[in-house]
Amino acid sequence: MKTELSRTLGIEHAIFGFTPFPAVAAALTRAGGFGVLGAVRYTAPDDLARDLDWMQEHTDGLPYGLDVVMPAKKVEGLTEAEVEAMIPEEHRAFVRATLAKHGVPELPDGEASGWRITGWMEQVARNQLDVAFDYPIKLLANALGSPPADVVARAHDHGVLVAALAGSARHARHHADAGIDIVVAQGYEAGGHTGEIASMVLTPEVVDAVSPLPVLAAGGIGSGEQIAAGLALGAQGVWLGSLWLTTIEAELHSRALTAKLLAAGSGDTVRSRALTGKPARQLRTEWTDAWDDPAGPGPLPMPLQGLLVAEAVSRIQRHEVEPLLGTPVGQIVGRMNSERSVQQVVDELTRGFEKAVDRINRIAGRSEG
Amino acid sequence: MKTELSRTLGIEHAIFGFTPFPAVAAALTRAGGFGVLGAVRYTAPDDLARDLDWMQEHTDGLPYGLDVVMPAKKVEGLTEAEVEAMIPEEHRAFVRATLAKHGVPELPDGEASGWRITGWMEQVARNQLDVAFDYPIKLLANALGSPPADVVARAHDHGVLVAALAGSARHARHHADAGIDIVVAQGYEAGGHTGEIASMVLTPEVVDAVSPLPVLAAGGIGSGEQIAAGLALGAQGVWLGSLWLTTIEAELHSRALTAKLLAAGSGDTVRSRALTGKPARQLRTEWTDAWDDPAGPGPLPMPLQGLLVAEAVSRIQRHEVEPLLGTPVGQIVGRMNSERSVQQVVDELTRGFEKAVDRINRIAGRSEG
Repeated sequence: MKTELSRTLGIEHAIFGFTPFPAVAAALTRAGGFGVLGAVRYTAPDDLARDLDWMQEHTDGLPYGLDVVMPAKKVEGLTEAEVEAMIPEEHRAFVRATLAKHGVPELPDGEASGWRITGWMEQVARNQLDVAFDYPIKLLANALGSPPADVVARAHDHGVLVAALAGSARHARHHADAGIDIVVAQGYEAGGHTGEIASMVLTPEVVDAVSPLPVLAAGGIGSGEQIAAGLALGAQGVWLGSLWLTTIEAELHSRALTAKLLAAGSGDTVRSRALTGKPARQLRTEWTDAWDDPAGPGPLPMPLQGLLVAEAVSRIQRHEVEPLLGTPVGQIVGRMNSERSVQQVVDELTRGFEKAVDRINRIAGRSEG
Repeated sequence: MKTELSRTLGIEHAIFGFTPFPAVAAALTRAGGFGVLGAVRYTAPDDLARDLDWMQEHTDGLPYGLDVVMPAKKVEGLTEAEVEAMIPEEHRAFVRATLAKHGVPELPDGEASGWRITGWMEQVARNQLDVAFDYPIKLLANALGSPPADVVARAHDHGVLVAALAGSARHARHHADAGIDIVVAQGYEAGGHTGEIASMVLTPEVVDAVSPLPVLAAGGIGSGEQIAAGLALGAQGVWLGSLWLTTIEAELHSRALTAKLLAAGSGDTVRSRALTGKPARQLRTEWTDAWDDPAGPGPLPMPLQGLLVAEAVSRIQRHEVEPLLGTPVGQIVGRMNSERSVQQVVDELTRGFEKAVDRINRIAGRSEG
């Protein structure tokens, strides 16, 4: 499975994997794909350096990348406390009532909420980059919008390609104008922040919009036949995020969550503003239902919603409150039905891809069968 | 482009086209695809017989099919007047106010509303079938749910294959249990009544669910590379509806509507209950915005909504009231940018398919390049 982009990066399979877990990213790189470590949870630069050290030791000199979050809408010039003060009391009361309804206990004394708004602030991402550019990363991806021009220039100075996610051809053209090297076309069916245009329509539209820049197809891909489909649509590779969540190497915070993911069908996700304030696909839970209920106050805009629910989400995860327990994940969750190693997943993907190519060739009359 | 199903039906390309226009269906069949005429607008059996006579004369003995609507939820035992009486006055007032706001004139004297609830009633569909089985149709498709067992048996007695649309693996299994021969997996991005699961995820899920029954991929397909993607996902053909709306042979009610379709992008559709009461993808207009506005009364359930808005839609179409003018269409509308003949469309689809297969083979290392 070789494209111009996979040759440029020196990887065996044009399979890119976004994951918050170093063990998953490294295993994918070792398996011949390209692991991309999500940096958003590293608020302390030392933690990121520690995990990048580990990546270096476990990737056999093969290439990998880093994914940061530099939101297009910035909250610079405001302290976290000032942003906090913008949250209406009605919404705080709704959080308290929803948690009380399900009997969600408090966090133990001294245990802090895992998610902080700081992870979404540009200065934090810049501190992450100060660390990351000391490592031989080959790709820098940005999840929300194009990175600032100086960051793109700095990456290029280090020989690092820059990728950005796009949910529409217009976003993709904006990235191309900003000097991005790779556009990840993320369809409606993907996990996390998505637009409304499905991969089948979005991928070729983005390819047309930014050609000759390489495009990766993201959203709805979890099998070799889906990889073949993404590549048939003009992509130079695929970008998978959800599929790794139930691998053996993944370090989900809860066995109960793994069980929910393994049991969920493709219809069990919802594109909801409950998590961050922007539409993000995630498991449908009683938590997302509460926020999407027209009778409730509804979600706040980003970054207020994320800040509002941060502690609640930590409490739900900490105590594994099953009806409320969720995570960002795409519709492909319906295919995530067993725990496998990253290597097993990659083997299955490449075998499935070859079978799909065989089948397409039979249909096109290019082989016996 | 040959699959087991296309061989069974004796067609050159596994391209199925659903269309309300006999000229489109016949042209597709002549071009080597398989035209499927939508019957829902034929409330008088004689009208259907006239158009099937015409199809016979214009298809050179090549195969074609018919699509009827037999809703899973029946309104039998009620007259149209009794159903009408179930519509709240608040909703009628909202229709009047929305039309008044845009200055939509009345229909001319003696001109009836084009759409009647009768087209959605099982007895009407049965009358259509009494006509249709006198013609050598090769496929009977049902747009909503599985047809009743006696209808399936009658089709099979006539050597007619039966197809049904499914938006989930569960629906598809239900069709298989009902003795259906072909499942059309209709993704979120498709025009008309759709579920929430996108084609990239839905198609292989339905294939797995009903194998060895053949599956057609529907939703988001308007190019040869998208056909290659649909077939890579395990489909035995593709089912296209939207793409024909801007062909030269199509008989849309309005040039203004054609212009809107040609100008629309993939983000200009919405999945709304405004048209029929069930979520159906269509052009986003000020009409759909009004019905989807939380400040309004919101759409009624099927079949009440369709009955409520029938005359209003006719008035909007008759007078080409641009801000309100819409039609069911999929996200592929973004690619419908020129008026071409059906033959030109098919030529472009098959050429694009061959190019996509070339590309996939290069990526798989199966050819020079």
